[in-house]
Parts: sequence; C-alpha cells; structure tokens
Amino acid sequence: MLKLYYGPQSCALASDIALAESGLNYEAVSVDLRADEQREAAFLALNPKGRVPALVTDRGVLTENVAILAFVAQSAPEARLAPLDDPYAFAQVQAFNAYLAATLHVAFAHDRRGYRWADDEAAIAEMKRKAPEVVADCFRLIETEMLQGPWVMGAAYSICDPYLFTFTRWLDGRGINPSRFPKVQDHARRMSDRGAARKVLPRYPS
Amino acid sequence: MLKLYYGPQSCALASDIALAESGLNYEAVSVDLRADEQREAAFLALNPKGRVPALVTDRGVLTENVAILAFVAQSAPEARLAPLDDPYAFAQVQAFNAYLAATLHVAFAHDRRGYRWADDEAAIAEMKRKAPEVVADCFRLIETEMLQGPWVMGAAYSICDPYLFTFTRWLDGRGINPSRFPKVQDHARRMSDRGAARKVLPRYPS
Repeated sequence: MLKLYYGPQSCALASDIALAESGLNYEAVSVDLRADEQREAAFLALNPKGRVPALVTDRGVLTENVAILAFVAQSAPEARLAPLDDPYAFAQVQAFNAYLAATLHVAFAHDRRGYRWADDEAAIAEMKRKAPEVVADCFRLIETEMLQGPWVMGAAYSICDPYLFTFTRWLDGRGINPSRFPKVQDHARRMSDRGAARKVLPRYPS
Repeated sequence: MLKLYYGPQSCALASDIALAESGLNYEAVSVDLRADEQREAAFLALNPKGRVPALVTDRGVLTENVAILAFVAQSAPEARLAPLDDPYAFAQVQAFNAYLAATLHVAFAHDRRGYRWADDEAAIAEMKRKAPEVVADCFRLIETEMLQGPWVMGAAYSICDPYLFTFTRWLDGRGINPSRFPKVQDHARRMSDRGAARKVLPRYPS
C-alpha cells in the first residue's frame, strides 16, 4: 500500500488531496516538522532531503509534489486528474505545478525559512519583511495569467488544483488578504467543497 | 516549427540539449537577459513570467524546464529521453528535475538575484556570501544520493542529464571546484562528449 508522509502545516496537502481523489489505497503518516522529525535518522533513511511529502511505494520512495502529483494521475487514469494522452496539455499542467514549486513555494519559504539562504539575523528579517510582497506578486500572476477558471486548467479539474489550493490557504497566515485575488479565492471555495478536500483537511489544521 | 527562447547564460541550455537529442525540428532564439530583454513588452506577451526558457509550439507557449523537458521526451518517444511507459520511473525523473528547479537553481539564484527576495543591500550581500555553501550542499546530496551513474537515472540517458549538466557548468563561476564532486564531474565530461551538447554549447559561452 502507498504511504504518504506529510506534515500538518506542509505542502504535502496537495499530494494528499490528489491521492484521495485518485481512489488509490493509501495511508497518511504524520511527521512532526515542528520537532524537526524530518531531520532524524529514521526519516532521512526514507528521504535524504529531509522534506515532506514523501510517498513510499512498493518500488521505492518518491519525493517532490510535482513528481508525486503526476505519478498519482498516471497511476489512476480513470480518475482523470491530468490530460495523460496529450503531451502539450500535460506539459501545461507540469509547468503550472513547477511554477508553484520553484517560485511560489520558494517565495513563501523566505517568510519562515530564510535561514536556508542566510545566517545573519538582519538578512533573515529582511527576507521575512519582503516575503508577503513577493508572494502577492506570484498570486497576481496566477490570478491574471494562469488560473483559467473554474479550475486551473479550465473546465477540467486536475492535479494543479489541490496544489494551488494548498498555497492559497497559507495567505491569511502571512497577512495577505485572499480577497485581493477573487478568482483564486473562488477557486479555494470550490476546492473546499470537494469530498477529497473535506476528507483530508482535518489532517492539516490551518 | 518549435521555437526555443533562451538566454546565453541561462538554464535554457537543458531544454536546448534535450531538443537537439530529440530530433524534433526547432529554432533557438536568443534573448538578451543582460539588457533585460525578457522584461520588455514583446517578450512578456510571449511569457508573462519574463523568464527563459520559453518554448513556442503551434498550440501555445510552454515554460519551466521541468515541463518542457517532459514535453520533449513525450513528443519524441523514439529518442527514449524518459521512461514514458512506467509511471514510477517517470516520477523519479520528474522528482530529480523538480529538485534542480526548486532547490538547486534557487540556491544559485541567491548568488546573483538576491534582489528577488530582499531590497536591503546588506541582506543581498549576505545571501551572496552564503550561496556557494548552499549550492555545495545540494551537489553533495546529488553526488551521494541521487546521481546513479553513468547517467543520472543509471544506465539510461534521460532528460535529467542535460539539466544537471547545465548547473554543473555554473560551479566554477561561483568559486566551487567541481572536483569536490567526482561523480558529478565525470557526468559533465560524458555530457560534453555527446553530439547534442557539442552542437548546442556554442550558444552558451561559459
């Protein structure tokens, strides 16, 4: 059986919702990021990066939401979570998710994890100060250029949707009013109404 | 015909080599990043993110190496650039490339583009100071845990290889001696010997 290692405040929510949508059989295992459990030997043996999500399969461990989400979509084609038979449309899905991973999530990380890129306290404080502005710039681009509506890729729900929803939920906690991005806010409401999100969200208190 | 917009110092090299390997017909179009051409209206109309690579197809524009590389592999299955019929193996490919995009490339960006995440000059200088250490940590993980050899995914060459090669070439310019990572260095030598790299590299002076 698949095992998803997640942190209750983490971006693993995206993979968790996609797994719930897929109908694949899986178990969710909590990792206490606040106690740095992801840096302990037992977890590092599983994922040397020391990060969640990590998805244990019968062939090995998969990491990175961009990869896990595509794996879930390809492993449960009947759930129609990505345009699997259309390389161009599939690439648009992967491009959206890669932007969230490499630009939006990175912008958020400068709020609470600036120590990854600086040791000096003042520099870390400066990144934290600027983070909401950088995050808002990303959401402005998503709102005006990327989110087609009603779902990210238009009429069809896809693995882009739980990933975007994951980060929209983080806005409030960073002092960014989601109402600045009405399409994104509507999207989050639609996501919250889905059975998969309702099933999974209790593991991710906001 | 496909058109790849690239910058001579940019990570577009990865997509450029993959396109050359694929046998697909394409044209490479240079964007002058030093003159901020990617921020001009003409380019923003193509890619509102203002970044390269951007791949113009007859259906629209694709961005993000992680997505473009997978698109190239799926569009030219006979070139065998990814394990297209094995969702687990394909996810390992995508996980490797997502790590390069979201962690390694981001580590490099703190060297020269710290202004993305801070306005204060001292904070930007502090990120620049720490960047080589963060980049080296990523390469240590790649060397010890990720690069299987001779190619990233083992015996089979894949879209992971040109992407890793792209960043290995940046080490010297950041004062990091590639000989600290012997498997990575060997990999770069093997990559340089391939016809596709030899054909494309003149566009990317180091």
